Amino acid sequence: MMNKKEALEKYERAKSKGEVDKDIISLLEKINSLPYFYTTSSCSGRIVLLNIPEIGDKKDAKFVCKWHREVDKKELVNCLKDYKEHYLFFIMQSPIIHIVASETEWANKLIKISLECGFKYTSIKKIESKKILVEVLSTENLHIPIGREGKIIVKEEQLTFFLEMANKLLIRAKGKLKCLEEKINSLLLSSS
Amino acid sequence: MMNKKEALEKYERAKSKGEVDKDIISLLEKINSLPYFYTTSSCSGRIVLLNIPEIGDKKDAKFVCKWHREVDKKELVNCLKDYKEHYLFFIMQSPIIHIVASETEWANKLIKISLECGFKYTSIKKIESKKILVEVLSTENLHIPIGREGKIIVKEEQLTFFLEMANKLLIRAKGKLKCLEEKINSLLLSSS
Repeated sequence: MMNKKEALEKYERAKSKGEVDKDIISLLEKINSLPYFYTTSSCSGRIVLLNIPEIGDKKDAKFVCKWHREVDKKELVNCLKDYKEHYLFFIMQSPIIHIVASETEWANKLIKISLECGFKYTSIKKIESKKILVEVLSTENLHIPIGREGKIIVKEEQLTFFLEMANKLLIRAKGKLKCLEEKINSLLLSSS
Repeated sequence: MMNKKEALEKYERAKSKGEVDKDIISLLEKINSLPYFYTTSSCSGRIVLLNIPEIGDKKDAKFVCKWHREVDKKELVNCLKDYKEHYLFFIMQSPIIHIVASETEWANKLIKISLECGFKYTSIKKIESKKILVEVLSTENLHIPIGREGKIIVKEEQLTFFLEMANKLLIRAKGKLKCLEEKINSLLLSSS
């Protein structure tokens, strides 16, 4: 597991390149200002089109388009134009944040507040010499195969429905980040 | 967290009622015969139709049909006949096994062999007075909204495609259980 200094340097580099989602920056910086936590990676939730060569082969999957915000139909349709081979999946994913806690007690506290905010899939990914890597994750997700061998197999009506659903789930999931930020704020206030 | 005696009693009750998936029984019993592990719940992977009243409201969701095996199209079409209201989701889920380990060292060993077998979403769900609850989970999943307000919005061609994909993913995911059973077997042999 990387240490806090390395993690913060990595974060600053990513931020300066514009690679950190804007709607998660203030939450990440609050978490990192607490002495017993630091973040190692994050995504504020997204809608993606993913090209997968073989069923189950996520290793060789390629992002065709990726948005960390609501998407309108024109953008989606525009992105589909480049689809030529393999399977195409329309995917909506919850926000995800990886946070290292310096002690079990703090990891448990973090898990508790994450669950309270609705991040019901939060778990511990790794324990290494007392450091604990927590993954904050919510339940919103869509995972829909929409193309095969270069051919889109769903009609416009269905695509519209999937997109509306994905946008609603994204807004719902991103709302949970605000809740988490408030709870981290309370920790900051009580530790200062 | 329940203790091993309670967990085994619960398991035996469920098994006698036919509620434990047959294709996971021998794996569970091998895990439970190791002194440092016990299982608290499991599912061998499934294809389900889920009725959801409101977007994101999994609490009030109801199973319409549930299969722990490949499904043929007739069965699926037959199940769709009962759909009358709310959203309907077609879902494929990976096998999932919850296992309590008596020490961090054994939890880490279990996570390692699970990852080696392709259960890439394996994590720790809880740590309580040295006991560690591990969730063994794989990446195969489909999460497709197919109905709205009692109306199926996908055509037969697409439903066939989704079902073929779900069946393939289910077989792939269940194959990982065999790998895990072999690795648990090795632990059994080395501990006897």
